[in-house]
Amino acid sequence: MHDDPTLADIRAAAELIAPYIHRTPVATCAAIDAIAGASLFFKCENLQKVGAFKARGATNAVFSLDGDVAVRGVCTHSSGNHAAALARAAGLRGIPAHIVMPSSAPPVKKAAVAGYGAQITECEPTLEARETTLAGVQQRTGATFVHPYDDVRVIAGQGTAALEFLEQVPRLDVVMPPVGGGGLASGTTITVSALRPEIEIWGAEPAAADDAFRSLRDGRRYPAVKPATIADGLLTSLSERTFRILGAGLAGIVTVDEETIIRAMRLLWERAKILVEPSAAVPLAAVLADRDRFAGRRVGLILSGGNTDLDHLPW
Amino acid sequence: MHDDPTLADIRAAAELIAPYIHRTPVATCAAIDAIAGASLFFKCENLQKVGAFKARGATNAVFSLDGDVAVRGVCTHSSGNHAAALARAAGLRGIPAHIVMPSSAPPVKKAAVAGYGAQITECEPTLEARETTLAGVQQRTGATFVHPYDDVRVIAGQGTAALEFLEQVPRLDVVMPPVGGGGLASGTTITVSALRPEIEIWGAEPAAADDAFRSLRDGRRYPAVKPATIADGLLTSLSERTFRILGAGLAGIVTVDEETIIRAMRLLWERAKILVEPSAAVPLAAVLADRDRFAGRRVGLILSGGNTDLDHLPW
Repeated sequence: MHDDPTLADIRAAAELIAPYIHRTPVATCAAIDAIAGASLFFKCENLQKVGAFKARGATNAVFSLDGDVAVRGVCTHSSGNHAAALARAAGLRGIPAHIVMPSSAPPVKKAAVAGYGAQITECEPTLEARETTLAGVQQRTGATFVHPYDDVRVIAGQGTAALEFLEQVPRLDVVMPPVGGGGLASGTTITVSALRPEIEIWGAEPAAADDAFRSLRDGRRYPAVKPATIADGLLTSLSERTFRILGAGLAGIVTVDEETIIRAMRLLWERAKILVEPSAAVPLAAVLADRDRFAGRRVGLILSGGNTDLDHLPW
Repeated sequence: MHDDPTLADIRAAAELIAPYIHRTPVATCAAIDAIAGASLFFKCENLQKVGAFKARGATNAVFSLDGDVAVRGVCTHSSGNHAAALARAAGLRGIPAHIVMPSSAPPVKKAAVAGYGAQITECEPTLEARETTLAGVQQRTGATFVHPYDDVRVIAGQGTAALEFLEQVPRLDVVMPPVGGGGLASGTTITVSALRPEIEIWGAEPAAADDAFRSLRDGRRYPAVKPATIADGLLTSLSERTFRILGAGLAGIVTVDEETIIRAMRLLWERAKILVEPSAAVPLAAVLADRDRFAGRRVGLILSGGNTDLDHLPW
């Protein structure tokens, strides 16, 4: 047996984090609908606190801790948005946050983390270096490790975005989050499967980091091997937990090439005035790439974040 | 006596155009508030149809025409957003639109106008060339000229943004639109003065195109002389009508340098994920430039539009 989060956990998370996060708006864009040949609804988590859905899971994790544990702080390794989210949540609760970041993380993300008052420890940009460095931080401080996605409290928090989305758009045929480590996709899957089993849940993943696609196709979990995509929030691999949840609930995963991700990102900026980071454009890229599958349907896309380095845009 | 629009005209416009425009959201951003030292509310007309508040005035003008006049179409000269707005409104009513555009207009704005099915006639980028070319179009087609701002129906339409804003944010100390030709500022002034006379109305204008500031200061109307600002929606001069309305209602105009406009634009993109064009960043630039005046107050800024050429960003 496992302890995967349930709809009840997600509802409890929604209540716990409500004072600290935004109920983000849902946008539509007639011009993009015409291009896609579908009715698209954009859940704007780019407008979430810290600029990404990660605020939901991190806030739920931090505020779920018992007081005597919380006081020793929290820690994590993250390439960016989860780090900022955990730093902010810890600040709101008045406890320390220790963040291990790869030296290659975008400056705008490092600055955000520092701005929330967290202690940053840099490391080499490898999973091994992250884990070793994090273990040292944990040993030194006694802080609780909050994994970016392999954590029931984090997944329950991420599932609150879909909870709002279903309330905001009563009729949807498809819901589609991007897939990286699978935290957002897992939370979305649990919420949508429980509340609206008739809705198809599709994942969207860069072809250049298609470990989740291959894992679900073959029924065995592959690591991401040297992923090289502009969607820098989607470089991580599924955990056993997220692999299990997505395998049970997803209709499938659509993979998209880099050019289509950039095209989708630019459409969102130029036509909808929605400023998203590349990872957040991956679901729209999937709609554009797999046009026949979504044609004429009402498709809810979760725009995961908006933290982009404005000095290095991909066009 | 004059026929300036009244609050009743603005309420009638709101009803007439409601099926064709967005009630745009109001955004806030804790990070920018901390920088500005004030509580800022952003009325997101960048998310309006055609990407700018201009959809309001143009739609009101087009749908106010009597049927026998409307059938001959509408025409205008415009550097961009008004042109797109008029073209779209004419398309919605099923009548022709003839647009005279300077050859220097940004490609993204020309493409938008053409996409709405309007006839474009290019001319040299001078007011004289615009007016001559437009006169030819009018003579040939019998179309009704809809001025970008010196038009009671257009001003009444632009005033509907403030009508929504006051409903959405019950308590405001200041409302601030950008000032170009004065259409948005005039509509805002009429609405706010009538409904909430205790609110201060400040205009925001680029120092490099400060004809409105100088005109109100000296009590006489100056033309804009070779304005050279990144805020390309604010190059035009006040008309007698907008000069009169703003002279009666504005507390004053804050002028801002180009560097502060770019800084404000980038803050809106980077911290609030609100994609605005340079003209729309001018009110935030004014708050940053004249910090003491707005410190600690609740300031409502009208973000006028979001049509920017993403290949030529100012940073």
